[in-house]
Amino acid sequence: MNKVNKNELEISTAPMHRLCEKAGAERVSEAAAKELAKVLEEIGVKIAKEALDYATYAGRITIKAEDIEIATRKVMEK
Amino acid sequence: MNKVNKNELEISTAPMHRLCEKAGAERVSEAAAKELAKVLEEIGVKIAKEALDYATYAGRITIKAEDIEIATRKVMEK
Repeated sequence: MNKVNKNELEISTAPMHRLCEKAGAERVSEAAAKELAKVLEEIGVKIAKEALDYATYAGRITIKAEDIEIATRKVMEK
Repeated sequence: MNKVNKNELEISTAPMHRLCEKAGAERVSEAAAKELAKVLEEIGVKIAKEALDYATYAGRITIKAEDIEIATRKVMEK
């Protein structure tokens, strides 16, 4: 068994409720918090994949903060 | 004191490490995990703000999953 479960969400809903509070929302359904966790997870994996490409290109096996920064710009511009 | 601290990260780094594993990374620095949490939080707040606008437009004070869906499309297309 792989220790990474590909079907389960890694990000929990509690911080998603707090992000919505930060955005000014008074009430957020649990389904909405779950949907936000799901989409952020998808975006996160996309960014991490790009970051891994940059790290590999730089001859590293460790992803560094600078790889995440450039990968985020790439993913958000697309 | 407001119960939402605007300077502290809501998303912890442990799930960020797991997202990077899902993306195929072997090693991820703690600074990179923190950077990923930071950017996902920024994107999350942006999506939540758009979602709140949609909910308000629909005459609701509660953000629903459908608001998150349409808000994500908006934010990711920009």
